[in-house]
Amino acid sequence: MSSEQALTTRAADFSAWYNDVVMRAELADYSPVRGCMVIRPRGYRIWELMQQALDGLFKATGHENAYFPLFIPQSFLAKEAEHVKGFAPQTAVVTHGGGKLLDEPLVVRPTSETIIYAMFAKWIQSYRDLPVLLNQWANIVRWELRTRLFLRTTEFLWQEGHTAHATADEAEREARLILGLYRRFAEEWMAMPVLTGVKTDSEKFAGAVRTYAIEALMQDNKALQAGTSHNLGQNFAKAFDVKYQTTAGDTEYVWSTSWGVSTRLIGGLVMTHSDDNGLICPPRLAPLQVIVVPIWKSDTDRQGVLEAAQRARQSLVDAGISAQVDHRDAVKPGAKYYHWEARGVPVRLEIGPRDVAQGQAVLARRVGGKAAVPLAGLPAAVHEAMDEVQAALLEAARARREANSIRNVKGREELKAFLDGAGGFAYAGYCGDAACETAVKEETKATIRLLPDEEFRSAPAPRTCVWCGRPAATEAVWAKAY
Amino acid sequence: MSSEQALTTRAADFSAWYNDVVMRAELADYSPVRGCMVIRPRGYRIWELMQQALDGLFKATGHENAYFPLFIPQSFLAKEAEHVKGFAPQTAVVTHGGGKLLDEPLVVRPTSETIIYAMFAKWIQSYRDLPVLLNQWANIVRWELRTRLFLRTTEFLWQEGHTAHATADEAEREARLILGLYRRFAEEWMAMPVLTGVKTDSEKFAGAVRTYAIEALMQDNKALQAGTSHNLGQNFAKAFDVKYQTTAGDTEYVWSTSWGVSTRLIGGLVMTHSDDNGLICPPRLAPLQVIVVPIWKSDTDRQGVLEAAQRARQSLVDAGISAQVDHRDAVKPGAKYYHWEARGVPVRLEIGPRDVAQGQAVLARRVGGKAAVPLAGLPAAVHEAMDEVQAALLEAARARREANSIRNVKGREELKAFLDGAGGFAYAGYCGDAACETAVKEETKATIRLLPDEEFRSAPAPRTCVWCGRPAATEAVWAKAY
Repeated sequence: MSSEQALTTRAADFSAWYNDVVMRAELADYSPVRGCMVIRPRGYRIWELMQQALDGLFKATGHENAYFPLFIPQSFLAKEAEHVKGFAPQTAVVTHGGGKLLDEPLVVRPTSETIIYAMFAKWIQSYRDLPVLLNQWANIVRWELRTRLFLRTTEFLWQEGHTAHATADEAEREARLILGLYRRFAEEWMAMPVLTGVKTDSEKFAGAVRTYAIEALMQDNKALQAGTSHNLGQNFAKAFDVKYQTTAGDTEYVWSTSWGVSTRLIGGLVMTHSDDNGLICPPRLAPLQVIVVPIWKSDTDRQGVLEAAQRARQSLVDAGISAQVDHRDAVKPGAKYYHWEARGVPVRLEIGPRDVAQGQAVLARRVGGKAAVPLAGLPAAVHEAMDEVQAALLEAARARREANSIRNVKGREELKAFLDGAGGFAYAGYCGDAACETAVKEETKATIRLLPDEEFRSAPAPRTCVWCGRPAATEAVWAKAY
Repeated sequence: MSSEQALTTRAADFSAWYNDVVMRAELADYSPVRGCMVIRPRGYRIWELMQQALDGLFKATGHENAYFPLFIPQSFLAKEAEHVKGFAPQTAVVTHGGGKLLDEPLVVRPTSETIIYAMFAKWIQSYRDLPVLLNQWANIVRWELRTRLFLRTTEFLWQEGHTAHATADEAEREARLILGLYRRFAEEWMAMPVLTGVKTDSEKFAGAVRTYAIEALMQDNKALQAGTSHNLGQNFAKAFDVKYQTTAGDTEYVWSTSWGVSTRLIGGLVMTHSDDNGLICPPRLAPLQVIVVPIWKSDTDRQGVLEAAQRARQSLVDAGISAQVDHRDAVKPGAKYYHWEARGVPVRLEIGPRDVAQGQAVLARRVGGKAAVPLAGLPAAVHEAMDEVQAALLEAARARREANSIRNVKGREELKAFLDGAGGFAYAGYCGDAACETAVKEETKATIRLLPDEEFRSAPAPRTCVWCGRPAATEAVWAKAY
């Protein structure tokens, strides 16, 4: 796609629009390796900013980073019955190393529970060794037939937390704590509102007792599972014989959790905020926060305008704001605006000869209009604008989600009409029988995204199952999903 | 190895000592996967601190991070003749994905030049697209038969820089710039003095025109290649057809570089500084900088001492120093000292009832004695101690290296006696003929580590080759190496 062409619009083809936005903003590119993408510097910078924020949240709650092998002996994967059923079909397998056929094939990690529990068994002996609170930043491989940049690729980057505890209660609290951190990160950094809740058995992690998740609604009204936190009970502890001596002197299996978010979040960020002009990026995660565009017509103006632009940039950089000057001679201001809009820079500063004379710049927001600001005190004005944009993006996304949610769906026909129509989150009663879940999926392709947490439940609670009409055991949120 | 046993001493068995230090300090552990290690939180924290420092140096010189696929089609590796010869025997090969035999096997990256140049060919069209200054933090796989924790493992973590330039001069300047950054990092952060210079053809990177390196001398007088920076000329550009339009309108191949350091640096850090009591870690890279040990005999003292210890810790943490209190009840102070010494904590603060009464603590350095310091102004005292330790470690390592270097080696017998004896760096004249290099290697197992840069050369320059007696073309530094 040439950088001159207009992007596909969301209305014309949401999926093509998404690819156009990602490519035009230079977040990622297709690689010659089937199913694998290249994350370009602008995309990787978003990931670095995400990592910094998440890593800070994890460390502040006592977690430490470690690193475990990329390769997992095939036999390890088989030790937990549900786990191997879930992951074996998706693995990439190394059969040769150093020019020789291996005695046992090695799987490229599709997740690291099995290799980590083999080490837990070595490290954990006593209640004094607990809790173990680890996290790993790593690449993961799951063979995918149909791939989408960031959303579904054979290789992706993620963090995976793995913790072991002395009691079931502690493990449950940990899984819930992390769910809260994920929600906070999604809302405060990504400006992406999420629902929280628990997955049904059919959607939970292979090997988990309970899977919690955050779910966001994209602009095409499809749901994106943006992070999961699993209470693994003693399933993996039993499979890998991870036992500890209790304070009473007994021996017990540990209780454990695992949890992760991935580069898929970048896809979620794009689909939550961007428009037909390209990427819209919340200021806290923007690879570049401010672009300064100097404007001149005559050569006599040029020098003064460029100097003022450089001074403005320096004042921002000194205040911890990332900023660049677009000083390309051969490109007109309008083309520069267009260029940086597509790349999602939240704030543009325009500085012309009259602005220099008046000691001001024009501050244009990627979303939200423009106004003159004095060059003295520029960093404060930019900080204020970015804070407002950050908050406005979250509010807009929340309002959109609520406008596209339907509560108290009365029965099959209403549910089908909603899900087959514009789509969105459908809240309805659910009897708890997997047969109803399956039936809805077969008829509409929608799944139960969550059994929502208290905060997101309807009042009064729905009394009957939307599908079978029997008494509702709970409320569920249905949607088509990525 | 139980935590009660003494470590193997360096004199008894340097290699066993090294493993003991790494294991006792909990930097790493053996994994059930052949040739792959687990990097434990204390080891990974050193790597994180190394990453922060290096990433800052790279970004300050205009480099950006990106991420390229883990898998490389086997045919890509073959495109540069020297490259495939160097790396093909060491590869791990994925033959199956998603349950099916792949049409073309995929190599797990042993380095990423080939996949990156395939992308450069797509991104680089014009002189306006140059230079491209990329870096990637990634895992790498090179099949190894004999492995050592951190020093040589089948999987390791590294950074790999890849840059493309419009001229040969620019590429050469880049390779040299990075060599300088590596030296600065080794000396200022790791307190590990290094020689810089260029590799002979037999030791250079497979596909490079010229390989620069930093080389350090370990305590067993063996050399460790700690980082390399390659001028690749147009070799990879030609293999992958990476061309650009010059300002004059002609088409030319780009000139390029690549460069890397890895988790091997952690092994170098251990072998440069540590002693028979365990890890010694330079304060700038210490996972934990200060351990506070409260000392009490009676229960009446306990509360006051613990509170003073907590206040001391908090004052340090507020000043950006990492600090913990060892408040284990069942462990005696002496055992705590021993515990934290083995883990390389640079500064220990002992606080007893009399210290509390006098408003002081005893500041004990991991290396360099102990003295009382007032609790008021503690952060400044600790900063000063850490700065002194950091500088003293570098000086001690430099003095040790110089004491174990021999210059102006007169001929074969002297060279052999030195290299077969205590060992170290041997500086001598070299005719430039690979036959002499090979002969020395066959007789002594030592290799030419570097043709040293100006700063490290002897004056007057040696006039004859140490091996053949013909006129010397240059000076070379020989040593046995890891």
